[in-house]
Amino acid sequence: GPVAAVVAELRCVCLTITPGIHPKMISSLQVIAVGPQCPKVEVIATLKNKKEVCLDPEAPLIKKFIQKTLDSGNKKN
Amino acid sequence: GPVAAVVAELRCVCLTITPGIHPKMISSLQVIAVGPQCPKVEVIATLKNKKEVCLDPEAPLIKKFIQKTLDSGNKKN
Repeated sequence: GPVAAVVAELRCVCLTITPGIHPKMISSLQVIAVGPQCPKVEVIATLKNKKEVCLDPEAPLIKKFIQKTLDSGNKKN
Repeated sequence: GPVAAVVAELRCVCLTITPGIHPKMISSLQVIAVGPQCPKVEVIATLKNKKEVCLDPEAPLIKKFIQKTLDSGNKKN
């Protein structure tokens, strides 16, 4: 995907942050640690409408999505 | 990347789980919610050696990595 390609090119992926994304809209979330490709943490969400957006790593909804998703996995197993 | 491609093909990505991955080895982490492509939560880590591995969604290290990564972002801003 475009995200993986950009990471391989060793630069930051996120130029703008999209606010107001509800966790229910997210189908997957990628958290990229600080590294040679970018001096800041980046969080990229793929939405259920297939769009990719960058989120604020400090937004509480990220922890909420992850918590909710991992918990739903626990229930299934 | 291969992961995005597989998700687009609407099937599960993770056939085997790799145990014993230390958070320090992870450069990015992707959390995929349950959806039409797969009936279980999937967690895919890209390691600093560029390998991609699937992790157990119930492993505490995932929350640790996310917490640590998002916290390091807070310190930078």
